[in-house]
Amino acid sequence: MSNAADPVAWVRRRLGYEPAQPALFIQALTHRSAAGDNNERLEFLGDAVLNLLLAEYLYRRFTEADEGTLSRLRSSLVSGEALARVAARIQLGEVLALGAGELKTGGFRRESILADALEALFGALYLDGGLELARRVALELMEPALAGLDELAELKDPKTLLQEWLQARGLALPRYQVEGVEGESHAQHFRVSCEVPALTQRTWGEGSSRRRAEQSAAAALLARVNP
Amino acid sequence: MSNAADPVAWVRRRLGYEPAQPALFIQALTHRSAAGDNNERLEFLGDAVLNLLLAEYLYRRFTEADEGTLSRLRSSLVSGEALARVAARIQLGEVLALGAGELKTGGFRRESILADALEALFGALYLDGGLELARRVALELMEPALAGLDELAELKDPKTLLQEWLQARGLALPRYQVEGVEGESHAQHFRVSCEVPALTQRTWGEGSSRRRAEQSAAAALLARVNP
Repeated sequence: MSNAADPVAWVRRRLGYEPAQPALFIQALTHRSAAGDNNERLEFLGDAVLNLLLAEYLYRRFTEADEGTLSRLRSSLVSGEALARVAARIQLGEVLALGAGELKTGGFRRESILADALEALFGALYLDGGLELARRVALELMEPALAGLDELAELKDPKTLLQEWLQARGLALPRYQVEGVEGESHAQHFRVSCEVPALTQRTWGEGSSRRRAEQSAAAALLARVNP
Repeated sequence: MSNAADPVAWVRRRLGYEPAQPALFIQALTHRSAAGDNNERLEFLGDAVLNLLLAEYLYRRFTEADEGTLSRLRSSLVSGEALARVAARIQLGEVLALGAGELKTGGFRRESILADALEALFGALYLDGGLELARRVALELMEPALAGLDELAELKDPKTLLQEWLQARGLALPRYQVEGVEGESHAQHFRVSCEVPALTQRTWGEGSSRRRAEQSAAAALLARVNP
């Protein structure tokens, strides 16, 4: 049975680390459906650890990338799908304690359980050995995904694509204008228009930041002039 | 003029820290509307620094709180409003470089500019002096908000309230069931039902996680039985 594997031996073998506090790692590898202390609190912490490690990694590696690109690259690394891929590579599923009901779960619910446990493991690594230990393991485990980032970083966003499309035709740049903002300051919703007078075109976009709303409006305009 | 203040002297006075790399702090205190390197990349990094510091702080202080409560407490600390309050207390506005167009901006747009600059400052502190320096400053600056957390932690969530309401009446616990999940794994949307057979009541809730959808369904049921 997969639950019977020894989590501490697995950590030693798969992560190359000898836990000082084995209980932390047993907890990180215990889903809430199983008996015992589960990994939800460690997942909360580990998610933040991983986010910082990747933010710093991307900040240092992509010195010319703007905040939007950095943010997009990080999302690609910490998506449930990406984390589940890492978890599968280190066969985390073989050592994760699950309740009987969850053992037969397949598909994407299983993916999300594995991704959560991987985050919890980073919480345990951080508490047990500090940020540098968590960094070493994260960069090692995520190496395949990190290797693919250059290509992803070069994918242009809709605003850049629209600008280039217009410049190639000698047309003036689009005008973006905030048409409305709703919600309190921590949960705003923006509505922005994008106008290209030379083409007598105007589109609208919405989003949780001005930047996102502009990207959405630019994408709509591009779709109209260059389907 | 507010822009004329010396950012490095301000960091020394307000944060009690002598920057090793003054340029980092000048950049953190430069909004994108001003000339020069702006603070958007540092804000991306600083947001992650602050999130980790607060996650760890809450994890260690609220040892019995579940992930949902920890997450709720952190949101209250890092909301634009909460950060703008901290920024106002240290008079960050007096040293922030803004373009002419933004100088007269008031209200909540100004709040969000200040909150972003505060996050950028944590990015600069982290790069210049490491996580421990950022931690010292964060816990000091946020002390007033941290002092109010106990009260906030005791506010119960709808699922707990519903459970207690039913138990007080000797009724069986509600049954939650996922009725639908949409979207890719990194951007899911859940629809959940909450049923209390003894009351022949059933409500629905939606949210970006099963937990959030359940809370929303529980709140709807509570509102119906206990307006």
